[in-house]
Amino acid sequence: MDRLPGFRDFLPEPVPTSKEDLWSMDLRNHIFDAWRQVAESYGFREYDGPPLEALELYTVKSGDEIVEQLFNFTDKGNREVALRPEMTPTLARLIAANERGYKKPIKWFSMPQLFRYERQSKGRKREHFQLNCDIVGETDRAADAEMVALIIDVLRALGLTSEDFVVRLSSRDAWQKYFEERSSDSEKATDFYQIVDKLEREDPEVSDKKLKELGFELAAVQDFIKQGNPTDELKIIIDNLTARGLGDFVKIDYGVIRGLAYYTGPVFEAFDKKGAFRAICGGGRYDHLVNLVSGGKVDLPALGFGMGDVVLAELLKARDLVPEFGDDLDVFVLIEEESERPASLGLIQQLRERSLNVDYSLTPMKGNKQFKRAQELGAEYTVRLDRGLAVLKHLSSREELRLAPEEIADHIIERALSQAEAEQN
Amino acid sequence: MDRLPGFRDFLPEPVPTSKEDLWSMDLRNHIFDAWRQVAESYGFREYDGPPLEALELYTVKSGDEIVEQLFNFTDKGNREVALRPEMTPTLARLIAANERGYKKPIKWFSMPQLFRYERQSKGRKREHFQLNCDIVGETDRAADAEMVALIIDVLRALGLTSEDFVVRLSSRDAWQKYFEERSSDSEKATDFYQIVDKLEREDPEVSDKKLKELGFELAAVQDFIKQGNPTDELKIIIDNLTARGLGDFVKIDYGVIRGLAYYTGPVFEAFDKKGAFRAICGGGRYDHLVNLVSGGKVDLPALGFGMGDVVLAELLKARDLVPEFGDDLDVFVLIEEESERPASLGLIQQLRERSLNVDYSLTPMKGNKQFKRAQELGAEYTVRLDRGLAVLKHLSSREELRLAPEEIADHIIERALSQAEAEQN
Repeated sequence: MDRLPGFRDFLPEPVPTSKEDLWSMDLRNHIFDAWRQVAESYGFREYDGPPLEALELYTVKSGDEIVEQLFNFTDKGNREVALRPEMTPTLARLIAANERGYKKPIKWFSMPQLFRYERQSKGRKREHFQLNCDIVGETDRAADAEMVALIIDVLRALGLTSEDFVVRLSSRDAWQKYFEERSSDSEKATDFYQIVDKLEREDPEVSDKKLKELGFELAAVQDFIKQGNPTDELKIIIDNLTARGLGDFVKIDYGVIRGLAYYTGPVFEAFDKKGAFRAICGGGRYDHLVNLVSGGKVDLPALGFGMGDVVLAELLKARDLVPEFGDDLDVFVLIEEESERPASLGLIQQLRERSLNVDYSLTPMKGNKQFKRAQELGAEYTVRLDRGLAVLKHLSSREELRLAPEEIADHIIERALSQAEAEQN
Repeated sequence: MDRLPGFRDFLPEPVPTSKEDLWSMDLRNHIFDAWRQVAESYGFREYDGPPLEALELYTVKSGDEIVEQLFNFTDKGNREVALRPEMTPTLARLIAANERGYKKPIKWFSMPQLFRYERQSKGRKREHFQLNCDIVGETDRAADAEMVALIIDVLRALGLTSEDFVVRLSSRDAWQKYFEERSSDSEKATDFYQIVDKLEREDPEVSDKKLKELGFELAAVQDFIKQGNPTDELKIIIDNLTARGLGDFVKIDYGVIRGLAYYTGPVFEAFDKKGAFRAICGGGRYDHLVNLVSGGKVDLPALGFGMGDVVLAELLKARDLVPEFGDDLDVFVLIEEESERPASLGLIQQLRERSLNVDYSLTPMKGNKQFKRAQELGAEYTVRLDRGLAVLKHLSSREELRLAPEEIADHIIERALSQAEAEQN
């Protein structure tokens, strides 16, 4: 029996093979830690919803066509349900039901696993994890700037620099104006946005043909992108980011438009500068979505972005920014005499109660084999009991100390703290 | 539109209402943090699999009856699939496919969300999160003891004591022997185990009738439980736990048997001592399951347990062990003059880059309102710029300091470190 196609297993490092759908749990946690840490540093609070929702939550916003791309089914209670393909509808549902209990602006993040029944192709998965950050209840462009800054700092926290990526900032409003000045058929607006969204990936002849059908010219659209005159709102966002020292990470680029129908203001996507990957993340304003999902009960402006783990992990690998994992073990306790096992178990218990990561051989094993195992596990220390004392060995410096067993935990923790202080100064 | 019945939403504290399916994301993270921290302190490494698996992965082990309780469906590629109802089959699949790359014993943990299509009743959910810890490749009872110790320490890390809970340790082997000495119909063994498993919850007359059908007497079964003579293997486990100082947390109790077919040796469940809740967790040895799931390709002994978040959270609430949440904000930056906004944004950026959690008002707001907001958010400090200097205020002590803006982060971090050292000594 194997896993389903398009899904991933996550194993501890070192992951034994490099099959496409066998991923590193340590790398996943590394990315999640950065997501959570930076989102919290921006004052965002975490939420989550169920991975299974009523199908209607998705069709109300995106129309019935989206059903093709969903893992949807009829449950045993005869409900039409779907595995969540994106988080924004869940967020809108949560906001509509609970916003009265929270001061505005609401700044929330989540790290859901999302599902799409995509046709299988290399690198295209049927699930991924996605950092979702949203600000609800604030129309000021300061919120849009805060959002773009957060994207930049998440990517920087993972080691990426302004050499590696850029956030392309655009305006759905500007595109809407462009469309409305040239077409009176507002129902075609979303079709138009989707063609523009695909321009960089699509054969120009195909785009040209599709645009002509809507009454537009490819060359004129390309000119509009090239001119790229920033709107006042985009200038405000750029100035705000410049005040933070983040000006180098962002540029105005009308080539970005976002395909989804619901965007209403500034939109943005982050890309690797070499252009080898799909967008690292994307988002923008969706000031009417909460109203739509709540059936008109709650009307709050909102904006947000989603950043998936798959493209991000590929980019980190390509830029050699995946750290070495597997050094989480603080202590390996050597039990060289079986008569020492009960006392050693007591020591192991003491150390673990102080939150130290401790391992040992469950069964009798030769001393040199135990030591080898300690090294394989990347232990920072070994400890062994010897005539009532504990011999603590720091493996990289080879320093050895003899202490009372109950002093071992204190010694290790104090050393770690002074090291943190030394690094701080 | 509402969430599906039996599913939960998780919101940041303070959660505005106490609806049954509206849970605290902070409490969930509090539980997850304890799970992960203690599992790692025991040298366990994290893994995960997909929430959707081939249906066959569950029917091969549990028979077709389990399908009734699953969220299962036919996907668009005509595959029979199911949302995972438990993690052990996924683990067995992962082990069968990848075990050669890992030294034995393999000590792994995971914190999956699991799904069952249960009939709706109070407190019964259709999903929960579950800590799963497993040791694979070790027959020695030292592994069983390590597993029970881990359960005890997870519960202790959440504040529970030997007043609150006990791990009831039993032996499937002893029950198997009991069965085989009295019945030659080995196909009925699992039925027998399931009746014994339900004894404490079931009407005695019903149990008696069911046991009689298999040729057993309720009174005799109850006697066997009462005697509870520990087998040698259980004595070894108890001695091992006593050496760790954990003897008070465990007792031999043959009333525990575990309902599932696949257990083969020691089994255990943790219960609150007042008996007000369902089992907090349960597990045991399943030495043949990897062999079964791998179709005979890989044969490794294994043992493990699962601990769900729902019963655990209810128990923590009942014992008043849920900490106060919402104090994660380190600094609220006050912007009293709009002319200071660009420089304040620069300061905010500096602080966040040092991993401090920082918030501020996105839009102009009166100074006293900003200060109130800082207090509501539980900020530890406020900072405001004043004529080129930064005024840092520690809210609980009301201490105020004037520093150069670039000294603020250092000051806060050093203070936190020396506080950690002071607590350590």
